[in-house]
Amino acid sequence: MAQTQLTRTRVGIVGGGPAGLMLSHLIALSGIESVVVDVRTRREIEQTHRAGILEQDSVRMLVETGVSDRVLRDGYRHGGIELAFAGAGHRIDFEALVGAAAQLYPQTDVFVDLADARERDGGDVRFGVTDVSVHDLTGEEPLLRFTDADGVGHEVRCELLVGADGSRGVCRGSVPAGERRQFFREYPYAWFGILAEAPPSAPELIYNHSDRGFALISQRTETLQRMYFQCDADEDVEQWSDDRIWEELQTRVGANGYTLRQGPITSKTVLPFRSFVQEPMRHGRLLLAGDAAHTVPPTGAKGLNLALADVRVLAEEVERALGKQDLGLLDAYGERALERVWKAQHFSYWMTTMLHRLPEASDFDVRRQEGELTSLVASTAGSTYLAEGYTGWPRG
Amino acid sequence: MAQTQLTRTRVGIVGGGPAGLMLSHLIALSGIESVVVDVRTRREIEQTHRAGILEQDSVRMLVETGVSDRVLRDGYRHGGIELAFAGAGHRIDFEALVGAAAQLYPQTDVFVDLADARERDGGDVRFGVTDVSVHDLTGEEPLLRFTDADGVGHEVRCELLVGADGSRGVCRGSVPAGERRQFFREYPYAWFGILAEAPPSAPELIYNHSDRGFALISQRTETLQRMYFQCDADEDVEQWSDDRIWEELQTRVGANGYTLRQGPITSKTVLPFRSFVQEPMRHGRLLLAGDAAHTVPPTGAKGLNLALADVRVLAEEVERALGKQDLGLLDAYGERALERVWKAQHFSYWMTTMLHRLPEASDFDVRRQEGELTSLVASTAGSTYLAEGYTGWPRG
Repeated sequence: MAQTQLTRTRVGIVGGGPAGLMLSHLIALSGIESVVVDVRTRREIEQTHRAGILEQDSVRMLVETGVSDRVLRDGYRHGGIELAFAGAGHRIDFEALVGAAAQLYPQTDVFVDLADARERDGGDVRFGVTDVSVHDLTGEEPLLRFTDADGVGHEVRCELLVGADGSRGVCRGSVPAGERRQFFREYPYAWFGILAEAPPSAPELIYNHSDRGFALISQRTETLQRMYFQCDADEDVEQWSDDRIWEELQTRVGANGYTLRQGPITSKTVLPFRSFVQEPMRHGRLLLAGDAAHTVPPTGAKGLNLALADVRVLAEEVERALGKQDLGLLDAYGERALERVWKAQHFSYWMTTMLHRLPEASDFDVRRQEGELTSLVASTAGSTYLAEGYTGWPRG
Repeated sequence: MAQTQLTRTRVGIVGGGPAGLMLSHLIALSGIESVVVDVRTRREIEQTHRAGILEQDSVRMLVETGVSDRVLRDGYRHGGIELAFAGAGHRIDFEALVGAAAQLYPQTDVFVDLADARERDGGDVRFGVTDVSVHDLTGEEPLLRFTDADGVGHEVRCELLVGADGSRGVCRGSVPAGERRQFFREYPYAWFGILAEAPPSAPELIYNHSDRGFALISQRTETLQRMYFQCDADEDVEQWSDDRIWEELQTRVGANGYTLRQGPITSKTVLPFRSFVQEPMRHGRLLLAGDAAHTVPPTGAKGLNLALADVRVLAEEVERALGKQDLGLLDAYGERALERVWKAQHFSYWMTTMLHRLPEASDFDVRRQEGELTSLVASTAGSTYLAEGYTGWPRG
């Protein structure tokens, strides 16, 4: 049996997605070393299609902390979105309303940039590990255990552990049931997402309300497009031929006057809709960040941005607490982060329920949604309120 | 058998509430005569407690058309409201945000002012009639039939008929089923409303979100107050002693730091929650206005204001259509009025769902509501959007 390697680091980070890597990067800038582990291989993460609409502050964080200039070069600046309903599109002009924009840049690329930056800076990141577990969370020296890709067992003693391992990771559940509150909501629908080899159908995202349900026109590159449409929560992608998908999409966006440019569909997936929050975000020396602490439905694109916002605050509070050797200071993390989390939960819920059709929706509900959308696009204040949420609120 | 009296008028108006009387008043200013009938006696209407928060344009209409200066003298100008949640109140300052205010002035008083004005101006208004029916709606000369308070039968031939007889009147249902669409939504709760002999507990309305459900602190006069709290849709007022009512109210508002001044409760009623719209608002020579065409839940106080907004537009279109003898012009009424109707439907739904607790609400839903309220009061744009809706949108 292979010997277990015993090491030490200041912060053990479970999860090598954007939240974990960004945290590792940020605290490294303050001279705090960490070990990041992820059960996925780097290649697995790179091959998972994840959309990405970055808030202005998310872009700024990537650029200003030296992670990526590619986000500006290869990303697409979106100065607004369109809300399309009752036969026509209405642009919400973020730049005019709040002096901000969103950036189209896939989460997969954010991951690549972060992984490259950690490698460049000599960060300790282990992909493809197995048997990850966390221990002694309320003790003086919490422990991170894992087996590396070569089959060698590791025990890493740290001052703090961070759970950035998503909604299906081990950290969320490591907080004893009596020490946590879990809040959740399920939705009776999902998104059917496709990647298609076609030129863009529009320069910006178009959120379509229609009698048949929601459809989102989005983009990826000049030759590859991402489209989504509301489907049943248990939709079977096998039942959807390319022809059927295009017909459904064209019908929904056509109701508002749009036509999609078609092409071969190279990926079909169903994205579940869930809202989840676990509180508190700290348990002893374990801190939760990103999807490990909360999940939002995809409408409004808050997931990645919320994870980055978490670790921006977390990095500050970790530096403060470790610098003063006062763990009580860590409570400030959850207090600061949760206000934004619940705002984002509401924003995601709002965008979702304003635009989707509930299976049991009455005609009243559909017309009431149109009444809301009419009110919103007719009101500078209403449009500004939406733009504030979409581009990210001021720092908390 | 008494002889039937045959008469003629230009516009026959069914319903002598604020919508019917205001319409009769407005068209009289342009020299168009009308007959208004109502199955209730004037005394019955005067003794029905109806709250009243008037939009700025509603106040202006009453004052500028010579109906009431009492609305300014006896009403109370409210420059804002408070939204109370998660332990504290947050004022939405209408005057600062949109340069407008709301006016606390009971619907009962609006009725009295209108009835007085019609009497003063020699308007033909018949209260306490029976057997009201409308006929020949699509013919050249529609017919209004009723029996007056003295038992005399009447047949009034008119050019136009207006149904302003509320949600339980005869006009809504006189449109053949195949010629109308009805939109509706029920809510799994109601309001328990009381009148109490006590001094005001606050200078303005306070909308309380609480774990136990919604509560509204409102006012009436210096010695009489109106309070509401969310209850079950089938709540039995007999089960509620004064003590129990005060305890429930104090608990809900106390959660946000308020204390109510108590006094003898002189009225207890349950107000149902319904959303309803019937389209179109015209059928031949019959036009629907106010509650006859639509009902909103009471949160946000849109019912009376929407009725007055309807008849402002209706008076203009009736004058235009009768002046040019072109009934096709009447379609403009519904087109203009319905945009506001659906905005108000959404606003009422929004205020309702943001503040009430659904019977099946999860903890997530309650916290998400608090997330929305937090977002709203923290955002000038969000607060402005709410203030626009509350004080009434610009004229449509």
